[in-house]
Amino acid sequence: MTIRYSLLAASLLAGLVHANEAPKNIIYMIGDGMGPAYTTAYRYYQDSPETKQIEPTVFDSILVGMAHTYPDDDTYVTDSAAGATALSSGIKSYNGAVAVDTHKKPVKTMLEVAKEQGMTTALVATSQINHATPASFAAHNESRRNYDQIADDYLDNKVNGKLPVDLLLGGGVRYFEREDRNLIEEFKMQGYHYLTDFDTLPSLQTLPAIGLFADKAFPFALDDNPNRLENMTNKALSLLSRSEHGFFVMIEGSQIDWCGHANDIACAMAEMDDFAKSIALAKAYVDAHPDTLLVVTADHSTGGLTIGANGEYDWKTDVIKGVHQTAWPLATSLAKGSDIKQVWSESVDWALSDVQFALLIDAKKSEEPAKALYQAVKSIINDQSLTGWTTKGHTAVDVQVFAYGKGSQAFVGSQNNTDIANKLIGYLQ
Amino acid sequence: MTIRYSLLAASLLAGLVHANEAPKNIIYMIGDGMGPAYTTAYRYYQDSPETKQIEPTVFDSILVGMAHTYPDDDTYVTDSAAGATALSSGIKSYNGAVAVDTHKKPVKTMLEVAKEQGMTTALVATSQINHATPASFAAHNESRRNYDQIADDYLDNKVNGKLPVDLLLGGGVRYFEREDRNLIEEFKMQGYHYLTDFDTLPSLQTLPAIGLFADKAFPFALDDNPNRLENMTNKALSLLSRSEHGFFVMIEGSQIDWCGHANDIACAMAEMDDFAKSIALAKAYVDAHPDTLLVVTADHSTGGLTIGANGEYDWKTDVIKGVHQTAWPLATSLAKGSDIKQVWSESVDWALSDVQFALLIDAKKSEEPAKALYQAVKSIINDQSLTGWTTKGHTAVDVQVFAYGKGSQAFVGSQNNTDIANKLIGYLQ
Repeated sequence: MTIRYSLLAASLLAGLVHANEAPKNIIYMIGDGMGPAYTTAYRYYQDSPETKQIEPTVFDSILVGMAHTYPDDDTYVTDSAAGATALSSGIKSYNGAVAVDTHKKPVKTMLEVAKEQGMTTALVATSQINHATPASFAAHNESRRNYDQIADDYLDNKVNGKLPVDLLLGGGVRYFEREDRNLIEEFKMQGYHYLTDFDTLPSLQTLPAIGLFADKAFPFALDDNPNRLENMTNKALSLLSRSEHGFFVMIEGSQIDWCGHANDIACAMAEMDDFAKSIALAKAYVDAHPDTLLVVTADHSTGGLTIGANGEYDWKTDVIKGVHQTAWPLATSLAKGSDIKQVWSESVDWALSDVQFALLIDAKKSEEPAKALYQAVKSIINDQSLTGWTTKGHTAVDVQVFAYGKGSQAFVGSQNNTDIANKLIGYLQ
Repeated sequence: MTIRYSLLAASLLAGLVHANEAPKNIIYMIGDGMGPAYTTAYRYYQDSPETKQIEPTVFDSILVGMAHTYPDDDTYVTDSAAGATALSSGIKSYNGAVAVDTHKKPVKTMLEVAKEQGMTTALVATSQINHATPASFAAHNESRRNYDQIADDYLDNKVNGKLPVDLLLGGGVRYFEREDRNLIEEFKMQGYHYLTDFDTLPSLQTLPAIGLFADKAFPFALDDNPNRLENMTNKALSLLSRSEHGFFVMIEGSQIDWCGHANDIACAMAEMDDFAKSIALAKAYVDAHPDTLLVVTADHSTGGLTIGANGEYDWKTDVIKGVHQTAWPLATSLAKGSDIKQVWSESVDWALSDVQFALLIDAKKSEEPAKALYQAVKSIINDQSLTGWTTKGHTAVDVQVFAYGKGSQAFVGSQNNTDIANKLIGYLQ
């Protein structure tokens, strides 16, 4: 297997990242789909209505620049795999690529460089742990859709004879306990602790370990545990802090993107909240361990989210804060229940207008009530809150770059997403 | 007239702006409506298709942070007047306010502070020069709509007995040569040169001066002179460079916002191009005069622009570059002309599809053909280029902050729009 990465770019950027600024530990956090409208929206969503002042967020406290996300073609709009490959290896590739270049050849990732250097490595996500973003740090595949092969790589893609990742926390049991190959048994034979009950996470005391807490992804934060990424981040940093030769961890707020694809603003804000709390933990870790660098960014923006829509100069955060379930379970409950207003009031604090009620009645009468109600519920919440969306896919707007701690100065300004990777690789070498 | 401004905020921020970092000259440039999607879109719009590399823009070369734009209420979405008031005085106010606070009391602007300090002052815009953004630097009014009163202020709002602005370049003849008061005659009596023919701009050699080159605003860059802001910027910097005690100039890319309100992407990109070329001139000025500070930002984002739409992962710059007229004159030509395809081909490089042709035929048959064609033309261009919009108004997404030259370090990171003003006022005092 030939592995290469942009030595030239890395060495050029090495001029920016002086050896004496190299941090011992790197915490790299990726908000999947988190464009600038998401971090701005989150500031207003989380603002206390009891104070006149609008409280800054953890994002506001560490913003240093922005990044260009275009993939290696002329479309300008990246997917999560090409985005993560750029952010992990410093190489622009095609949409769908998992740490391979445009010729489908593997490219070396910063996690692999860290492992070569004897550092402890970790991946944390609320998606399946073999989803595009974490995958692009420790696996190589021509397609993000080859989930089984990607899971295999977490065992087979050895670095200096060792497994690439010392700690894996996320979802994806079905890809690891397969009929054709039981990766969990193999991990255990390699000395890994295995956890599958999220409630047992606090008991984990040593590495290596793999925790898979969902068949595929975790449920959305709004529907289940609003702190699951925060809890995993806390455990990961606690375990990694004992690493003698430093650590590299990539922590993904995976499902911001999925709420964006769904155009579901209440869903998105709950995911942002879990991610923000995780960043706050990481920032506190840097305060306690000043030899650590925290870098936070996004792979792209999702859904064409805008704060304000339909000509009105307003965005109604109370409407969004008053929605306590994502659109799909709410729609299925409405489809099953007999009393629309009763079911609605169980998940939403504000009452339906007559027009909105009529919309839901019409949707319920359609051939596919759950699907029609799903669209109607989102339309009602978006219109009521004045939230705009332009696509069920991604957009090309630059994303923000946040950095804090040792070596953070190198990330000030406008940069390519590959520059972020090359600066970090420069620190790791 | 009681004039006040946020002394506390200014003095708190003075800690950031050390006296020895204070620049002699300040060039403050505001892209009206220019949210992060505009600067990103412009990078891809201006990219040379002949090179594999995507060339960075002048914006990329000086990005340092972002700013929060919310006004002084709970809507989160500002208008240009409240935005400009925040950016000129460091005070959040209500939408519509021109350098007055929420009690409609005048607030001191940085242009007034500069004038108090004996600096030369200037306002340059492609809108009427008494439009909300320039107005909020040298006039005070409870409503941006009081155009005549605002124009009056450019004579009556004296600072230490002097007129506030030494150089005014923009549009707005109708507000200055009025039946009830001829401000131009009064300016001349105060020793101002007056120009009204844009072609004579190169001949202007001394200050004070007022140049009004349109009855209201300039025509759009795409429809007329693509370099009118660049030309005015060039002349303004040339004249101001002789200021013994330094200068303050506010230069506005006024019509980015108007193209955004119209949801007209070709219009917006041509305005961005004129603004970007003006910034390049200002940046070169800083290189030649290192005691100068350049700060560029926006008051808000307009239209909910997104790069990519309708689920497709692409944005087609060749489509936008192939449109050589804004939507309204194109629609009126289509309404008047007999041959739709012929008229279309005179302004647009790419051919109409059958579906698009049918859309225009239908629009032309409607009761108000020009209006219907206007909507149809924009819909065709937006769909063909995969450009998304969510509103005819503004949105609340954070805007970018760009800074270059002496004292630019103070603008790194996330900040309130009022912080930008207070840092600049700190330098001026």
